[in-house]
Amino acid sequence: MKVGELGERALVKQLAELIDCTAVLCPGADDCSAIAFDDHYLVVTTDMLHKKTHFPREMSGYQIGWMATAATLSDIAAMGADPLGVTMAMGIPREADVAFALDVVRGCNACCVQNGTMLIGGDTDEHDELTLVGTAIGRVQQDKILTRAGAKPGNAVCVTGGLGLAAAGVRMLLDSRYADHPLRERALKKLFEPQPRIAYGQALAASGAVTALIDTSDGLSLSLYELSTASNCGFCLLAADIPVSDAAKSVSRDRSDQLTLALYRGGDYELLFTAKRERLDAIPIPYTIIGSVIESGMQLYVDGIVQELEAEGYEHLAASGPKV
Amino acid sequence: MKVGELGERALVKQLAELIDCTAVLCPGADDCSAIAFDDHYLVVTTDMLHKKTHFPREMSGYQIGWMATAATLSDIAAMGADPLGVTMAMGIPREADVAFALDVVRGCNACCVQNGTMLIGGDTDEHDELTLVGTAIGRVQQDKILTRAGAKPGNAVCVTGGLGLAAAGVRMLLDSRYADHPLRERALKKLFEPQPRIAYGQALAASGAVTALIDTSDGLSLSLYELSTASNCGFCLLAADIPVSDAAKSVSRDRSDQLTLALYRGGDYELLFTAKRERLDAIPIPYTIIGSVIESGMQLYVDGIVQELEAEGYEHLAASGPKV
Repeated sequence: MKVGELGERALVKQLAELIDCTAVLCPGADDCSAIAFDDHYLVVTTDMLHKKTHFPREMSGYQIGWMATAATLSDIAAMGADPLGVTMAMGIPREADVAFALDVVRGCNACCVQNGTMLIGGDTDEHDELTLVGTAIGRVQQDKILTRAGAKPGNAVCVTGGLGLAAAGVRMLLDSRYADHPLRERALKKLFEPQPRIAYGQALAASGAVTALIDTSDGLSLSLYELSTASNCGFCLLAADIPVSDAAKSVSRDRSDQLTLALYRGGDYELLFTAKRERLDAIPIPYTIIGSVIESGMQLYVDGIVQELEAEGYEHLAASGPKV
Repeated sequence: MKVGELGERALVKQLAELIDCTAVLCPGADDCSAIAFDDHYLVVTTDMLHKKTHFPREMSGYQIGWMATAATLSDIAAMGADPLGVTMAMGIPREADVAFALDVVRGCNACCVQNGTMLIGGDTDEHDELTLVGTAIGRVQQDKILTRAGAKPGNAVCVTGGLGLAAAGVRMLLDSRYADHPLRERALKKLFEPQPRIAYGQALAASGAVTALIDTSDGLSLSLYELSTASNCGFCLLAADIPVSDAAKSVSRDRSDQLTLALYRGGDYELLFTAKRERLDAIPIPYTIIGSVIESGMQLYVDGIVQELEAEGYEHLAASGPKV
């Protein structure tokens, strides 16, 4: 069988089975792996991005560097961890301008600095297609680490930010009708320079209220499916409570289309978490409750009618490129 | 200016200047960066390899995975550190066989296990050209870390192993006269499945005798130039003392050609170090003394005549691909 027929998630599953890993969290199980280091866990994640599927021609070098760094730092945020550093490997075409390469690294550096960390490693290599691989290392107290496992029936399901903003950016980019849209700049900034929710992740870890955490880089629905697998639970979402960003509303055909952008498109890099309802007051960051953890099933209530939440979102290999 | 005109080393130098790094060792300065973590240093390194310049078609998937892992672990060895884990990002063509992808990860895993560590992270991405990016994390006691800086005039210059073995492998691969050469298997194993000198690096760090350390992945001469820059010193080598591997001798035209393979070709992944002469007895691993640290200059004595050691070896971008 070919890699392209199998798809990314199935491939990763098979690859993970080959690994002799005795870490607390092993590759494939969570946003990061985790190994014990004194009284902390060291958490580690790596993300590979490349021009064809991740960097549209409208992105500047700075934004490309920012995006690659933010993507990997978002996984550190999703463990409630404090970033220690990021390494960035860059495969770059011989014919690229040196100024462009410098701009990419400026973007990496800026994203690190803004998130209280630094670039601590790099490599450059000649490559036909621009390719960036960011690896982030973080640490978190052993009793504070948050993972995808731990959601319990009855917990509230919560999300930060307004969803579908990056997806709105994709539409605004591809459709000339939105060239002068008042929210275009904001949506494109979200799409090209997403903010890893480092401070939010740390606040959630400190709160003691959160039972499971993940980022929404692949979209809300796929992230819920990941939580469901790791926590062995189901979810019941109330469509009316899902915080759809104004930009997503303004580029949607109808209510159903709004939900598509908010549920089934990636790139928002927000945090999705479950929390004990009696401890919600301890959570010091802005968030929205969108549903409940249930025993099993992936339910979406739309106008009082229950639908099955689809396992649809951003997946590489099997279906590459952003959806519109 | 284009990236290909500037060359890798000059590009890395410019990139490193952009980075706000407050680590003990920052990117570009050494084999690894280092950050303080309790009473240890966490050392981190990342290496990008891809098909066109690193993986000849004769390599199996297993060997490709091994090589990518070994290359990054060799940098951990060069700090005298204990590896904590390796992440591996794999960009793989859609049309690749799943069996091949699994074989690559088997090779990564085997190299980790044989060096007392484990794969703790991964990512897969669709890519036209097979690309592997390994990132290794290690730790070392703060008072034991070895870097490229610290060589002092009068120190002995030492190297592990027999040099030019990987370079002999390249010749044997490209020249059908060597198809049945008795050392072919050994040389190709060195070329395709190099051994990162983790245990040697740790022993050197523990000895208290070593003043500077680097691996020879880019060749002995370029590695000496790196030590020279970091330690602000020169070197005087005795050609007669350089341990040329039997395989390199057997595929060389003459003595000068032997030295070319041993000095100016990469891929051996041995350790090159400087040590206090009065403490040499404390070094518990096999090594060869090949010269002395001097105040300045890069001298090579061949049959009593001094030559300038050339800054030639394996450099990407400016001159890609292995030399023969």
